[in-house]
This record gives sequence, C-alpha cells and structure tokens, in this order.
Amino acid sequence: MTHVAVLGGGNWGTAYAAIMADAGCTVRLWARRQEVADEINSTHLNSGYLADRVLPETITATSSYADALDGAEIVVLAVPSQTLRSNLADWRDLLPKDAPIVSLMKGIELGTGERMSQVIAEAGGVEQDRIVVVSGPNLAPEIAARQPAAAVVAAVSARARAKVAEASATAYFRPYLGTDVVGTEIAGATKNVIALAVGMASGMGMGDNTMASLLTRGLAETARLGAALGADPQTFLGLAGVGDLVATCASPLSRNRTFGYRLGSGMSLEEVIASTKQTAEGVKSCESILQLARGVDVDVPIVENVAAVVHDGRAPQDVTDALMSRARKHETS
Amino acid sequence: MTHVAVLGGGNWGTAYAAIMADAGCTVRLWARRQEVADEINSTHLNSGYLADRVLPETITATSSYADALDGAEIVVLAVPSQTLRSNLADWRDLLPKDAPIVSLMKGIELGTGERMSQVIAEAGGVEQDRIVVVSGPNLAPEIAARQPAAAVVAAVSARARAKVAEASATAYFRPYLGTDVVGTEIAGATKNVIALAVGMASGMGMGDNTMASLLTRGLAETARLGAALGADPQTFLGLAGVGDLVATCASPLSRNRTFGYRLGSGMSLEEVIASTKQTAEGVKSCESILQLARGVDVDVPIVENVAAVVHDGRAPQDVTDALMSRARKHETS
Repeated sequence: MTHVAVLGGGNWGTAYAAIMADAGCTVRLWARRQEVADEINSTHLNSGYLADRVLPETITATSSYADALDGAEIVVLAVPSQTLRSNLADWRDLLPKDAPIVSLMKGIELGTGERMSQVIAEAGGVEQDRIVVVSGPNLAPEIAARQPAAAVVAAVSARARAKVAEASATAYFRPYLGTDVVGTEIAGATKNVIALAVGMASGMGMGDNTMASLLTRGLAETARLGAALGADPQTFLGLAGVGDLVATCASPLSRNRTFGYRLGSGMSLEEVIASTKQTAEGVKSCESILQLARGVDVDVPIVENVAAVVHDGRAPQDVTDALMSRARKHETS
Repeated sequence: MTHVAVLGGGNWGTAYAAIMADAGCTVRLWARRQEVADEINSTHLNSGYLADRVLPETITATSSYADALDGAEIVVLAVPSQTLRSNLADWRDLLPKDAPIVSLMKGIELGTGERMSQVIAEAGGVEQDRIVVVSGPNLAPEIAARQPAAAVVAAVSARARAKVAEASATAYFRPYLGTDVVGTEIAGATKNVIALAVGMASGMGMGDNTMASLLTRGLAETARLGAALGADPQTFLGLAGVGDLVATCASPLSRNRTFGYRLGSGMSLEEVIASTKQTAEGVKSCESILQLARGVDVDVPIVENVAAVVHDGRAPQDVTDALMSRARKHETS
C-alpha cells in the first residue's frame, strides 16, 4: 500500500487525494489551515472546497508539513502557482530523497516565466527524473463525484510516471502515460487565458462557432509556443491540450470563463474584479505567457489581446476582432 | 464579380451562398424543390431551412441545375452525402470544365467507403486539382446571423484554394488555406460519430470531464485513422478537426448530439428514431468509417462502440466503459 503526501487542501488537491485513496493508497493531506485539517479528520469532509464528497477514511489531514511528508513514497504538490517557490523553501529539506514529486499546478511564475516543474527543480532541489506532471480535463467537483475522466501523467522518467499512474488509477479515473513535461505544462497554463477569451465572446452574445474558432486558434498559438519551447505538438491534440481546454471552456464552473463572460457582457474590469472572490488564474498568467512568447519570438494574438483587455482596459470586442483581422494564410503558419 | 453556382438549398448550402454573396459574388442557388426557389426569388427567404435570414438580392434561385450551372466560375456542392453520386450522374456533362468544384459535404459513402472528394472525382469526372473542401466550426444558423467564424479551405491546388477563399472571405467569415483534403474530410465525417458518443454520455448525466475526455479520445482515434489514410496529423488540431468537433459537441442544434443524448437518457433506439425528423448523419457514417478503419487496421474503439449501440442495440453505458477499460498506456499509441 503506497503512502502518499498531498500538500494542499484546495478542491483539486482534495479531489486528487480522494482518487489516490480510491486507488488503494494511504494519504496524508497537508492543509494550511488547522480547521480544514480538523474537519477532514473528524467528519471526512472538506466543506469549504469540496462540499459534496465524503472522503475515504484512508485520508488523514494535518497542518504540519513535516508530519505530512514523513514516510511519503509519492509527494503531490497542489498549492497556488505563485506561492510554490516560497512553500518549497520551507519544504525543501523534508522532501523524501527518492520519491516522485507530482505537480497538479497550472501556471507560469510571474517574473521568472518559469513552468512549475522548473520551480520544483530549482526551489525544491528535485532531480528532473523525479518530477511528474498530471493534467487533463479534470474539473474537481466531477472527479469527486466519480464521473469518468482521463488524464495525462507526464514525466521524463518511465519509472516515475508508471509509479504515479499506478497509484492514481481507479474505475473512474484513467491515467495515460506521457513523456512531454514541457507541452503538458504550457497547455495547462495557457488554457486559462483562452477560457477568458471564450468567456468574453460568449458574454458578447457570440455562439458556438465563435467559441470553437477562438478555442482552436488559441490552441494553435499554444502549440506554436510549446513547439518553440521544445514541446511535442501532439501533446496539444491530447487530454492535457484539447481535453483540458474543452472541459474548461464548456464548464460554468470555470472561474476564467466566468471572468471573461462578465467582461464580455459589459461589466467594467473593476466591477468584474469586485464581483470575483478568487482571482481567475488566466488574469495573472496571460502576462507571463506573453513574456515567454516574446522571448522565443512566437506570435500569440489571442493571449496578447486578453492581456490588453484585462490589464490595459481595451474592449473585449478586440479579442474577436483579432481572430478575424489577420491576413489570409495557411492554418498552421 | 465572381459568378457562383451553389447546388443544394438546405441550411448549409443557403448559408454558404449568403457568405459568398456578402463577399461580393453573384450566386445562382439550385434547390430541388420549385417552391423553395420561388420563395427565395420572391421574398429572399428560405423559411424551411434558414428562417431568420433575409438573403442578399445577389442570390437568385432555380430548380433547374442546367440554369444554375450556366456560366459558373465556381461550383459549390451541398447535397446529402449519400445522394451525391446520383446527382453527379445528372450534372456531370454540365459542370464547367475549368471551375473549382467545392464540397461542403461531411460524410463517407456507404458501400464504397469513399470520401466526398473521391465521389466528385469519380462520378463527376473532375480533376483532383479542381476539387476544394471547406470545413470548420460552421453551424449554419450562426453563420447566417453573421457571427464570427473561421474555416479551412483545403485543396491540392494553390490556385483553386486561393480562388475559393477569396470568394468566401467576409468580415465575419475567415477562410484559412489548407492542403490536406484527406484529413479535412476524415475529420468532418468522424465528428458526427463522436458527437453521438458525447451526447450519450451527457444523456447519462455525465459532466464536462467525461465529455471532454470522450471528445479528445475520439479525436485521437480520428487522427490515427487519418494518418493511416495519408492525412496530416496537424489537421486534427485545426479548425476542421478540433474546431468543428467542439462546435458540434457544444451545440444544442446538433442532430447527432441530440440523438445520442436521447439514447443516453434511456429512450430505446426505436423511440429515438421515431422522435427524430431528419436522420443523424453519424448513425449512417459510423459503419462506413468502421469499415475504412478495419481496411487500414486502425483501432477506433469509440466509433466501434457507437456503431454497436446504434445498430446492434448495445447499451450506451458501453461507450463510456470503452473509454476507461483499455490497458494503461501512452496517450498517442
């Protein structure tokens, strides 16, 4: 029975802990706040993040990361992208020396432009062949309800990805093996920005053709960016690419889509921010992605327009206009 | 001013005629039924197929195909996939000898397993370098409402695709150039079958993860089939692949999705057929696609399961089970 530490008690960390418990692991979940850990231990619920799921008894929680990491054979990281570096500064010396370290995070670090696996290697002192990235169409509330879904478990090490896939496979959650860490991470970070654009179009009253055209052109610019950074273009055709993007753009649960929708329907940026409890990840990451793209000289018109809308106050109409206004040309160029 | 013949007065033929008229062409639309031609000529409406759009005055209609084809510089074919061969037997001698022939049709011929461009070449006596295929996320009612959308205009001839793209470009409709006729047609035909599968999952109460996982795995098997038939895998990442598939699976207007939804929600096959006015294209084409796949020894589990449900009466549950039950493996294999 594999013993797993899951660091982060938000909705995706908690849902992933439940997958691994259902797959037969014992799980020690670290929650920053003591009351979250107490609730899980006493009632098997995490009502603030995943209200409807009774968690297996093989999940226990703690607010001590030393306690959570003790004896872990796999470590799963599920903290906010922008706090990962400072978390790792605390955890570095306690991380087990030979366990796979799994990233569930989808973001690009502001300032450095680094992917999460790069931050893990750098700030956590973790070797590349222990780092595993899990991504796919995995809305946490649906996973928690045990609805069928699939995901990619990507790593450079065959041994590491097989170990994590084995420990995460259940009747409702199907892990596929992948080798493309860079592509999986770029796809995961960029999809939030595209979901903002799709939400804007939807808020402006546009229908499914426009949504699908924006999604597809957004995927094309993501694939171009990924290829320039060393990713395999086929990754964007898979679960971490199309799959995650489609689930996010279709779901009324997506914070990014909702943020975009409100902008598109005529609310001002200030009004949308005031009406949003948690920040939409794409609002932060569009700038770091744009910076990455400029560094490798790749044109990302949809990301660029989203950044102009959410940071410079340009009209959402400009996002759909950007889709239509470029010179007639081949689709893949 | 380019003069265009559009053969077929259904909703997509009529909407495409409107695009070309908006792009500055004069259009002669052939409708099989005289009353449809009369209504278009007298009121500029095609109320049976595209009720809400007043058509430009540069579209005139006729029920005589000889009349429609007279002097055409571009011919657009928009008839049902399974009647194309018999239509072309009538039209063959009247087709202009040097005009691009455009296919708007998405299907595989039953019996022969041929793509529409193959039927056009064979039954119409048209040279490969005049055949152009248009496909993308193009739900006709939204196009008719001039909502922004993009499409691929694919042909082996650079001259032919450029001429058709030029004659179809408007402020709301953006053609991208493509070279992959085979991939564009395989993507278009298979998406209807995947939409049936997605509809079934939705009817069973599954959420967006399952929908996105099915869509992505369906796209993966389509890409494998396309590659075996000589297509470019990148086509499936584009507007004719992901784009069309996403629009179809998202839209409540899709007959295929609706057909699958009713099966998934518990209606019997007989009840669904009785409740459906027009046959869903995927119900026919899943068999011809399966036949194609077997011919090149490609595994298409989702298509296979859809065929078993709609033809052999197996339970829709088997479609989602098929997604989850294969051995753990790499995503692209």
